[in-house]
Amino acid sequence: MEENNKRTDVNELGEFGVIEHLTRNFALNNPDSIKGIGDDAAVIDIGDEALLISTDMLVEGIHFDAAYTPLKHLGYKSVVVNVSDIYAMNAIPTQITYSIAISNRYSVEALDDLYAGVLKACEMYGVDLVGGDTTSSPKGLSISVTAIGRAKKEQVVYRSGAKPGDLICVTGYLGAAYLGLQILEREKQIYLEHPTVQPDLDNAAYLVESILKPEARKDTIQYFHKNNLKPTSMIDISDGLASELHHIAKQSNVGLFIEEVNLPIHQETQLKAISFNIDPLTCALHGGEDYELLFTVDSKDVEKVKYMPDVYIIGDIVEKKEGLKLHSSGGKIHNLTAQGWKHF
Amino acid sequence: MEENNKRTDVNELGEFGVIEHLTRNFALNNPDSIKGIGDDAAVIDIGDEALLISTDMLVEGIHFDAAYTPLKHLGYKSVVVNVSDIYAMNAIPTQITYSIAISNRYSVEALDDLYAGVLKACEMYGVDLVGGDTTSSPKGLSISVTAIGRAKKEQVVYRSGAKPGDLICVTGYLGAAYLGLQILEREKQIYLEHPTVQPDLDNAAYLVESILKPEARKDTIQYFHKNNLKPTSMIDISDGLASELHHIAKQSNVGLFIEEVNLPIHQETQLKAISFNIDPLTCALHGGEDYELLFTVDSKDVEKVKYMPDVYIIGDIVEKKEGLKLHSSGGKIHNLTAQGWKHF
Repeated sequence: MEENNKRTDVNELGEFGVIEHLTRNFALNNPDSIKGIGDDAAVIDIGDEALLISTDMLVEGIHFDAAYTPLKHLGYKSVVVNVSDIYAMNAIPTQITYSIAISNRYSVEALDDLYAGVLKACEMYGVDLVGGDTTSSPKGLSISVTAIGRAKKEQVVYRSGAKPGDLICVTGYLGAAYLGLQILEREKQIYLEHPTVQPDLDNAAYLVESILKPEARKDTIQYFHKNNLKPTSMIDISDGLASELHHIAKQSNVGLFIEEVNLPIHQETQLKAISFNIDPLTCALHGGEDYELLFTVDSKDVEKVKYMPDVYIIGDIVEKKEGLKLHSSGGKIHNLTAQGWKHF
Repeated sequence: MEENNKRTDVNELGEFGVIEHLTRNFALNNPDSIKGIGDDAAVIDIGDEALLISTDMLVEGIHFDAAYTPLKHLGYKSVVVNVSDIYAMNAIPTQITYSIAISNRYSVEALDDLYAGVLKACEMYGVDLVGGDTTSSPKGLSISVTAIGRAKKEQVVYRSGAKPGDLICVTGYLGAAYLGLQILEREKQIYLEHPTVQPDLDNAAYLVESILKPEARKDTIQYFHKNNLKPTSMIDISDGLASELHHIAKQSNVGLFIEEVNLPIHQETQLKAISFNIDPLTCALHGGEDYELLFTVDSKDVEKVKYMPDVYIIGDIVEKKEGLKLHSSGGKIHNLTAQGWKHF
């Protein structure tokens, strides 16, 4: 029962617009609520330390297709995407809660597969499963995970700390998960049209694994802590590099300048993108689901990041008035548009 | 894709059986994980204090019927059922995260109503909204709420602390929410068959409000703290008194003895149950969704609970070998069977 007569479609506002709109009247009133909505995780004051909390929902038919997503991988990934948010605050994940709503299509054996993946991820990332809810659903599978983490209060890194002169860095390669998804979608279509044809996933292991079984950058955070390196800002790349750059720029009140030639794109991503007639740059900027870390560091720390394994310096933070620009490999300057994954 | 050939329906195990089965291989490895699955909330060590975490999912068509559930009430209730779990640990809720998956049937205005209820509950219970996720769903509305709370570590009350000789107490009245639901279901059927008939909710305000807009027992916990009264065990009544008594008995390794004449049943519940040809005792024992507190106290504290507003002493904890018994108003002794709400 809707109590108003006006009807505004959520698509008109978009995901971030809807969240901003719905939460506009909420304030933080408890003194221990350090940071609420608007970063990778909420931050709660627990004395010397901060407690981090992040939560995500994964819905069948929206975030995953049961036709080509092994449940064990799904269980693993659903934990990874949440601990990734904790790492993005420069913190260590410690616990998760795991809730599922399941239709009667799912057997106990299917759930065993799902939870085998959850267990593997808990072991990999050192988190304890401490709670959850298990209920039925009229249709499909929905998963809701909450991750909890810890950091020394002064070590927490927000999206808002980047300043002109900082270097912009990313971990790992970009765009592979997006292409992995395109491969799986293509194979699904072929299967639906020709059920006897075997899937052709040869040479696509890296790309397919990127979408089905991503890893979170535990190693990066351990390196930061070991080397006393604290980024000035950080975010994980779930919606695509360009979208995350916009979050950093908006919340830090700065502009930024990205060098296309410095964007780390794996050779397999390059080749497969071309075979799909997609610009590899589009995959890297807008693909999403990479779960790599995007962070900025003070320029005095350049020596520390230059030799960091798996880290690429892709640009600089500039004054806000200079906007968000991409220096293409062709030598031109483009405005960098945000175009994250839209689930609406 | 199910990787096993055997197919066991989740109904064969039941909700609690499924959770036990799926989580049997998970251990608590982090030293700050005090209590994991198996109580109203998980308990995390944060120094002098403990942090409590509880999470619940509410799924359209399972937990609520959009046909007769105003979204503002739903928003309010979805917060209440979660803070109730924090109170059930003798703790104070401080923050929530609020996630929704919504189909395109829901407009921004509909979500405004939902979040107006969330805001009202946040204000009522003094909790800050600090995070969440907003995504789309192929069908209907799913809500996932995580509540966070605090308590001094030695003040946390578990399900497992009841001992022979303790008094068993409940707050408020039992069974009203169940009858409220029956009234709404009946009106829905009448409406579907005769759309011009106006709903007959006269004199049913108390019962209908019990299901649509329950409150959590903040007042009870405040009374405990003010009067230095610490229950020996506690649980909130979400699945029905009998089911919760079984949880207390199992986890405390005790038996218990309940006096039917002492069960608090509101006069309106009595009358409506009779008009529906339902035994009021069945509503009180098995109705569910009451969100009252069931707790046990040491017999030395009898004077403190005897004069507590809205608290009823309904029985005693006995040795495990004596089992779980109900002394009926007719003078007979019955075995107390658990029969909670089954969402499967």
